[in-house]
Amino acid sequence: MFGIGSDDSNPSFECSAPCNNLGFLQKNNNLEEKISSFKERSSKDLLDNSDRDSRFRRTETDFSNLFARDLLPAKNGEEPTMQFLLEVVDILTNYVRKTFDRSTKVLDFHHPHQLLEGMEGFNLELSDQPESLEQILVDCRDTLKYGVRTGHPRFFNQLSTGLDIIGLAGEWLTSTANTNMFTYEIAPVFVLMEQLTLKKMREIIGWPDGEGDGIFSPGGAISNMYSVMTARYKFFPEVKTKGMTAAPRLVLFTSEHSHYSIKKASAALGFGTENLILLSTDERGRVIPADLEAKVIDAKARGCVPMFVNATAGSTVYGAFDPIHEIADICEKYNMWLHVDGAWGGGLLMSRKHRHKLRGVERANSVTWNPHKMMGVPLQCSAILVRERGVLSGCNSMCAGYLFQPDKQYDVSYDTGDKAIQCGRHVDIFKFWLMWKAKGTIGFEHHIDKCLDLSHYLYTKIRDREGYQMVFEGEPQHTNVCFWYLPPGIRDMPDGQERRDRLHKVAPKIKALMMESGTTMVGYQPQGDKVNFFRMVISNPAATRSDIDFLTDEIERLGHDL
Amino acid sequence: MFGIGSDDSNPSFECSAPCNNLGFLQKNNNLEEKISSFKERSSKDLLDNSDRDSRFRRTETDFSNLFARDLLPAKNGEEPTMQFLLEVVDILTNYVRKTFDRSTKVLDFHHPHQLLEGMEGFNLELSDQPESLEQILVDCRDTLKYGVRTGHPRFFNQLSTGLDIIGLAGEWLTSTANTNMFTYEIAPVFVLMEQLTLKKMREIIGWPDGEGDGIFSPGGAISNMYSVMTARYKFFPEVKTKGMTAAPRLVLFTSEHSHYSIKKASAALGFGTENLILLSTDERGRVIPADLEAKVIDAKARGCVPMFVNATAGSTVYGAFDPIHEIADICEKYNMWLHVDGAWGGGLLMSRKHRHKLRGVERANSVTWNPHKMMGVPLQCSAILVRERGVLSGCNSMCAGYLFQPDKQYDVSYDTGDKAIQCGRHVDIFKFWLMWKAKGTIGFEHHIDKCLDLSHYLYTKIRDREGYQMVFEGEPQHTNVCFWYLPPGIRDMPDGQERRDRLHKVAPKIKALMMESGTTMVGYQPQGDKVNFFRMVISNPAATRSDIDFLTDEIERLGHDL
Repeated sequence: MFGIGSDDSNPSFECSAPCNNLGFLQKNNNLEEKISSFKERSSKDLLDNSDRDSRFRRTETDFSNLFARDLLPAKNGEEPTMQFLLEVVDILTNYVRKTFDRSTKVLDFHHPHQLLEGMEGFNLELSDQPESLEQILVDCRDTLKYGVRTGHPRFFNQLSTGLDIIGLAGEWLTSTANTNMFTYEIAPVFVLMEQLTLKKMREIIGWPDGEGDGIFSPGGAISNMYSVMTARYKFFPEVKTKGMTAAPRLVLFTSEHSHYSIKKASAALGFGTENLILLSTDERGRVIPADLEAKVIDAKARGCVPMFVNATAGSTVYGAFDPIHEIADICEKYNMWLHVDGAWGGGLLMSRKHRHKLRGVERANSVTWNPHKMMGVPLQCSAILVRERGVLSGCNSMCAGYLFQPDKQYDVSYDTGDKAIQCGRHVDIFKFWLMWKAKGTIGFEHHIDKCLDLSHYLYTKIRDREGYQMVFEGEPQHTNVCFWYLPPGIRDMPDGQERRDRLHKVAPKIKALMMESGTTMVGYQPQGDKVNFFRMVISNPAATRSDIDFLTDEIERLGHDL
Repeated sequence: MFGIGSDDSNPSFECSAPCNNLGFLQKNNNLEEKISSFKERSSKDLLDNSDRDSRFRRTETDFSNLFARDLLPAKNGEEPTMQFLLEVVDILTNYVRKTFDRSTKVLDFHHPHQLLEGMEGFNLELSDQPESLEQILVDCRDTLKYGVRTGHPRFFNQLSTGLDIIGLAGEWLTSTANTNMFTYEIAPVFVLMEQLTLKKMREIIGWPDGEGDGIFSPGGAISNMYSVMTARYKFFPEVKTKGMTAAPRLVLFTSEHSHYSIKKASAALGFGTENLILLSTDERGRVIPADLEAKVIDAKARGCVPMFVNATAGSTVYGAFDPIHEIADICEKYNMWLHVDGAWGGGLLMSRKHRHKLRGVERANSVTWNPHKMMGVPLQCSAILVRERGVLSGCNSMCAGYLFQPDKQYDVSYDTGDKAIQCGRHVDIFKFWLMWKAKGTIGFEHHIDKCLDLSHYLYTKIRDREGYQMVFEGEPQHTNVCFWYLPPGIRDMPDGQERRDRLHKVAPKIKALMMESGTTMVGYQPQGDKVNFFRMVISNPAATRSDIDFLTDEIERLGHDL
């Protein structure tokens, strides 16, 4: 250790070498000058009790004899705490760098039994006794090593991909703040950020003056569940107190291509999945409005009460946008709640070029919109937005006296917890707010336009390419490009069951090989009577045309001999 | 900048001064040696394409001309990304240090309108154009500045307090991995950690061989909702498809002291809050088993079907533990599902000294247990555990083909997403798993015993102290210590409405003054016919006896003249 004094009682000086303290003096070029300037600063800081942030430097710390109990709030825990956190950050920043490095694999696949048996000492079992911080750091490295790099430019497997640096910083801060959204009292800044951001989203939807209500929920499925609950409360408020038996037999409508969360909600909330009526779609996966009207009429004839219609804006597999205006007309005619599930497609509202795909969304009674999908916000970030004020809170409030005291000294209308079905609620807003600040609305627009351009590139590339067959005709509406890859051995087979059976096995086989080689990831599934096909989706800001080319090359390389 | 070469094409060398690279060479004392050793390492690294982590050092970066678009995945984005993240970490580590520093305030209170008007340039409004990274860093600092330090040793306001360093590191890693729990495919390590941890928790509950099922959910309210859904599916599986009208009139039972989430669930799931029957408690807030049986008999006589009983293990306000064995006897007798809401009290299962308070928990059909409360895990971390295997997945599975493909190359029984009511699910397990590794079971035990010791200290301190009155007699079961502070002007008033009215206003006033001075935070509420009282709870690992003393001194200081 160098001779410059360190004073344990003053946290500004718990650093072990002056050299490591020079970061903030970078602009001086001469080392002597730096040290002398550092000394000056040091004396100044000792006198000056200001709030200026001091800076910690990593030192070579021996973590093998340190344990969790040595960290803060332990006595003298500050230095090991800082060194431990900086070591973790080193692991994380290295991971971030490699995530964007195309020479790194997307994943290093292992079967469950392999990981459970313990890979090279990576032991998942929990024990009674503590492990050293050195082992904890190794565990952190191993956890990342055997995971999947969802931010890798060639990760296309889910609707949520990418690793936004601002969003990441926002999440780190959120975890450090470690608070809860239910009251203004303990989350003043986050509660206000949520309120302002939800208002902005409602303005973008097109509701007058951004009026209405909303909340961030733990994902699109819960947001969709909120929409059904809120609709039920609007039409049959007595269900809240008396249960479903107080209402007539209610039916809900959604596309056969819609997300399964509507079905989960109908089961959970006591409607029953049989009372969720699936709507037929055109060949592109869009609801046929006439089918909706026919089914509404039929349901009424059977003595049911049509209550709720879900229109999907960006379906999971095809990326289809249901025709909202036509559906809204029918909802108005038959007095039904219109929900737009824009979990995946809502992001397109940020793009002047693509928002027309949600034309009519301003007529919806409620909208689900997941910034964690198309807008690249880290998981989780999903909003349920409701046009009419008061219904959401009316539906869920229970006025728990121990949490929401009316006699607080501040305006308690900011205590939003009682409109949630949750009690404690994770802070999902900050990363999103910070990204919006950092990118501006135009930054999101740019990202969305770029993703759609890339999917257009993929579509035009493979549309007429030998060995590819599109699942549906025409330009996709969203970034979903659905296609079969046909290995040469299948191409000339006559259409029929045998060909279908063989084709059904192609995507799973390619996917398995892809995961084993770790080069890229893309999803596949069957849909209706269509055998397994690839569903390519692009929401990853790191992806470029070269990655699209890589993907098709890889599919051809792995699938050629199947 | 010094002369040692930096090579932009190699991320290991994007550092701007050798001085900043010396951290990993700390053991050498001579600067010349360090630089020469650094040069050696540099050449070695250029040749060596190994996976060794390189280390970034913070440099003085001008962020005023940098924007989000300059960060990764931008070309040459690596250096600004690393510098930005390190700058954020500097803000966060400073926040962490100050959180544990008792000379720092718990909060710097402002009213909503003050924050909305913009405090010293902290502008919450979102705009179309991006802001510089410098502004983003300022926003991060301001967000923390105007927030509440929930990890501060004198923050006692909620059941979740404290800032666990290992848990924090776990959350930072979780955000960096940014993945989703629904399939093994994209979260192999986390899915297995969840499985092993849930098994361990079931073993601790006392279910044979830790058998059963479970899932981490977004908080105790959702976990409790799962319990009601699962019970309904067990007894009336046809409700899933046909809705609540397919079942007889079902009734649920819970203590009048229980958490409001049971009521929220009864409203949401279509039972109706009127069909949730509240059970009377003794003066300590524990359910009276005879009252349960009487109400079950009464409900049956009215033609209702008693289906579900919630026993609270650690009530929100009093910290009461319902007598599980006696309740379990009645549940068995009348064939009802027994749920134990151990959101708050479940942590006591980790303590050999205190786990007897949950005696009989092994007879429960399901248990809610929130590690984010008594076990100090960062928010959110809540488990719902179910004794019988298959009910949870039977209840919620919808077999969405696009997500859960049976023809994957690995054992798809690890794709656990379909048993959730969510689709995407946040990774809540890693921080908890990591804390368990780092502390061992005995570390959690020690933490819990310490918190209960502290509350015992508070209880014995104020029990007979002038100016204090306990809300209920006897030693609290959990860390909840409920009391009135009586300012001298009230002490000699005769019991009656006037005294009650004045006393009702004391806690809110003290709390308001406390928040304005920012010195400490503790909750208050009325309960039944009892006017506002303080509910002190201790889950904060940083709290010591001196903080308890500080709290009572502060209450007396602020409340003396009321």
